[in-house]
Amino acid sequence: MRYSKLFIPTLKESPAEAEVISHQLMVRAGMIRQLAAGIYSILPLGLRVLRKVENIIREEMNRIGGQEVFLPSIQPAELWKESGRWDFYGKELLRLKDRHDREFCYGPTHEEVITDILRKEIKSYRQLPVLLYQIQTKFRDEVRPRFGVMRGREFMMKDAYSFHASDESAQETYQDTAEAYSNIFRRCGLEFKKVEADSGTIGGNFSHEFMVLANSGEDAVAFCDSCDYASNLEKSEARAPLPSDDPTAPQELKEVATPGKRTVEEVCEFLSVSPCALVKTILFDTDQGLVAALVRGDRQVNAVKLKNLLDLESAQPADEKLIAEKAGVPVGYVGPVGLKLKIYADQEVALMKSMIAGANKPDAHFTGVQPGRDFAIEKSGDIRLIKENEPCPRCPDGKYAVKRGIEVGHIFVLGTKYSSALKATFLNDQGKENPMVMGCYGVGVGRTAAAAIEQNHDEKGIVWPLPIAPFQVVVMPVNYSTDSVREASDRIYQTLWDQGVDALLDDRTDRLGVKFKDAELIGIPLQIIVGPKNLESGTVEAKIRRTGESLLVPYPDFIGEIRNILKDL
Amino acid sequence: MRYSKLFIPTLKESPAEAEVISHQLMVRAGMIRQLAAGIYSILPLGLRVLRKVENIIREEMNRIGGQEVFLPSIQPAELWKESGRWDFYGKELLRLKDRHDREFCYGPTHEEVITDILRKEIKSYRQLPVLLYQIQTKFRDEVRPRFGVMRGREFMMKDAYSFHASDESAQETYQDTAEAYSNIFRRCGLEFKKVEADSGTIGGNFSHEFMVLANSGEDAVAFCDSCDYASNLEKSEARAPLPSDDPTAPQELKEVATPGKRTVEEVCEFLSVSPCALVKTILFDTDQGLVAALVRGDRQVNAVKLKNLLDLESAQPADEKLIAEKAGVPVGYVGPVGLKLKIYADQEVALMKSMIAGANKPDAHFTGVQPGRDFAIEKSGDIRLIKENEPCPRCPDGKYAVKRGIEVGHIFVLGTKYSSALKATFLNDQGKENPMVMGCYGVGVGRTAAAAIEQNHDEKGIVWPLPIAPFQVVVMPVNYSTDSVREASDRIYQTLWDQGVDALLDDRTDRLGVKFKDAELIGIPLQIIVGPKNLESGTVEAKIRRTGESLLVPYPDFIGEIRNILKDL
Repeated sequence: MRYSKLFIPTLKESPAEAEVISHQLMVRAGMIRQLAAGIYSILPLGLRVLRKVENIIREEMNRIGGQEVFLPSIQPAELWKESGRWDFYGKELLRLKDRHDREFCYGPTHEEVITDILRKEIKSYRQLPVLLYQIQTKFRDEVRPRFGVMRGREFMMKDAYSFHASDESAQETYQDTAEAYSNIFRRCGLEFKKVEADSGTIGGNFSHEFMVLANSGEDAVAFCDSCDYASNLEKSEARAPLPSDDPTAPQELKEVATPGKRTVEEVCEFLSVSPCALVKTILFDTDQGLVAALVRGDRQVNAVKLKNLLDLESAQPADEKLIAEKAGVPVGYVGPVGLKLKIYADQEVALMKSMIAGANKPDAHFTGVQPGRDFAIEKSGDIRLIKENEPCPRCPDGKYAVKRGIEVGHIFVLGTKYSSALKATFLNDQGKENPMVMGCYGVGVGRTAAAAIEQNHDEKGIVWPLPIAPFQVVVMPVNYSTDSVREASDRIYQTLWDQGVDALLDDRTDRLGVKFKDAELIGIPLQIIVGPKNLESGTVEAKIRRTGESLLVPYPDFIGEIRNILKDL
Repeated sequence: MRYSKLFIPTLKESPAEAEVISHQLMVRAGMIRQLAAGIYSILPLGLRVLRKVENIIREEMNRIGGQEVFLPSIQPAELWKESGRWDFYGKELLRLKDRHDREFCYGPTHEEVITDILRKEIKSYRQLPVLLYQIQTKFRDEVRPRFGVMRGREFMMKDAYSFHASDESAQETYQDTAEAYSNIFRRCGLEFKKVEADSGTIGGNFSHEFMVLANSGEDAVAFCDSCDYASNLEKSEARAPLPSDDPTAPQELKEVATPGKRTVEEVCEFLSVSPCALVKTILFDTDQGLVAALVRGDRQVNAVKLKNLLDLESAQPADEKLIAEKAGVPVGYVGPVGLKLKIYADQEVALMKSMIAGANKPDAHFTGVQPGRDFAIEKSGDIRLIKENEPCPRCPDGKYAVKRGIEVGHIFVLGTKYSSALKATFLNDQGKENPMVMGCYGVGVGRTAAAAIEQNHDEKGIVWPLPIAPFQVVVMPVNYSTDSVREASDRIYQTLWDQGVDALLDDRTDRLGVKFKDAELIGIPLQIIVGPKNLESGTVEAKIRRTGESLLVPYPDFIGEIRNILKDL
């Protein structure tokens, strides 16, 4: 295509609201424009990239037997009430009413719709398994949309759903999809990790995320520096603690004055003890009421693990007001002894023989607190956040490394959560009615493109991986009005197109400097610079965007060498 | 692809709510399923067809320099208020509020959004023209969604918008697009007519529709049987009447008793006159208040023409209550004499010297009514519906034919309606600021597929035109478990794929009769039947869906002949 005919509104300056580099560069490169908070128009250059990502996704999904469908964005409330998510989903679900005052939502995901279709069509195990996918627009009314298309409200997603007669079959498709996803992200030129993940609001038994490592990532990923264990930090297991052999324990329960000492640091300093000797009592506001979670003084509670241990739907740290009202204890001095709440302890705490904890009254702590003797633990387990350099739970010598990651894919075994709720059953080979076993699988299309920019850019702009570059090659005449230059440029451009190479001809009258700046900003992997001097000596210049490396290629017999360069990019 | 692995839920019976054949067949062929009124899920077979239509659209739009974009479905109310359409659009616009209570709508069209983008990026005539298009989901909250995807509420549409420095440039792109549309519909295998059309709620100066002729069409299309004048009936011009030379006129105004005679027929019979001697006075409720429209007794008012003549935004026939309240006259006896409303007359009526009309009181009419003398005409023009066999307004001998049509495409020159409202200006070559001239252009993707079915089906099912068939060829083994048959079928199937032919292998264990029924229902253009007897004599059977014609093709050297058959389909 000819640059002069294209709508590529590049900008010198980044928009003020763009916090991350991918957002800045997508706007500057004329790929996207914001219409409203978290809602973006995709301009021609941006769409070329998204379509390439989509096609890679399609090829890999088709390869594992996926069939493409297209489901409605506007979904009736009844289905969401049937699954129980109408009430559960909260404000992220964009709700609306049609002209007849009937309730609908803009689909943030499609478990309900697809299950509704399948329950009407599938009668027998002989019709299973089925793997359906779509590439389609979702809306999630995020509190704080940000980072451009990375966490938009309206966004493009590939979502897939599978239906099975058995857990084994679901596992097979889960593994197939995991492989397809690895292929997709590798083909998009991304460095990524497949990590164990929490199932979150989707629910289900089993889940992995595909994380692109980048400093701007909103998630933290923990992985072993020795074995291949990797997980989302909210899921990362702590190595099981050994039973304590504290020789000083047990001690007597004793109240000590700690006037004005509220934080772990303050109490430790005041009592001259290590934070390991303290226990923090954190109260959580949950769908089962207020509960207390105990972790060691040097640890943090992991709310996701707590939710999973207690099978909760929601758990947020309680605020001061709620704590005063419901527990009647002063913040900073909360402790397990005499607390009128169910107490859940981290596995480390459960093994402690003696600890220091708040006394549930102002300016006082207990020392010598002993679980079992001084308070009852309702349940204990792994409910704390792990930290960098902690020992790996899966191998003897490994240590945790923690990095930031962008979630580009997420796969789930859902089990029968939705099929049971919506009565999506089939007759098995014994003629017995069973709910179908389901899986679901998502890739953020725009987010994948943005993640590629986070990993592939420099101070001049984007450096696209070849497979998802909007154009693979840009032909840059030094001066398009010079006959020999124009003829050679046109010929190179045409030859590239004829050979199936996505080429852009920068036929603008601008100075070469302007053309370079734009080509570098929009990140085209290979530049072919056509100048009169080189032409006279039978060459053109090929410049590689990523390395800045420049080499002379024979002209007119350029195509073989250009093909070789492209192959190595 | 293998039939046994595909999700193609065919049905023997049509759904009760499906009124038209395309809706019935799309459901029966497992292409679509209804989720809610006017909202459909597109299943794998349906999506294969839609994607082929989309790709044809894309190729033709790219060929004329169109650039693909993807605009948000959720649009802020502010933009629609700026253009004035927030209030004007009525209940068809699906309105909603986000979590912060800000107003949005689900885009039924994208003039506002695209104009907002361009006004920020276009500064100079040098950046013009620009032609942008998208293929995207729209929502129009129709009162009465029906006919499946033909008039759905949520539907897929290709919409395009062009921006120009001059009317001439807009006209050029309009003509280019008209040609692209003709190519699109021809390539989709449709018989269609390009007809003059009203601009409707979109506004603008100039418009054509692309109509597929079919009995189930919701529009009426009038076209000359002699010249190439064709138009939507709501736009069809009447031939200008000659001045009347009625020798009996002028007559005296005379009140006659017409007890209980309200309709044209009753009055004519009672007074023994022809309907041509009567004038009907129809009152319209408009945005400019109640107005009266006069047409001859044998004619009908065309509300669209009336709106255009008076530059109205809305005009509906007033109901009895409103007529009594606002005009104080009895329905059936309304007439122009003494009527306290503005009176607009059809051009025929304006030329009449003497007419019979209601007397604005019960059971009475006037005879000898003369315009000018007995009442004043505010404005006259062509405001009536034309009928079959009337003379063509554009050629001397032609007569009107009227048929039903399905609107599959619509193109508009918008002029500066949106650019003026949204202040989308540019500096022209004299450095003067001007609003951009705009055009807009739409194709219904699902509607095009449905229209193809309306024109291409028989009692057994769909007969797809080859370019948009979900599969071009189906390979049908008589018995897939027989070794020789299976080997030959697999080989034919694989060869077809390798040669770029979309082939389906019906590897199901069902009887051949079941396979035939499904293949005919889903409308695959060519069947290749592989049986042991034919194989022994070195042949397979090729059967053409449209004609039922069957011929023997040599095996294993089948590919040349199959290619020839496909070329002729």
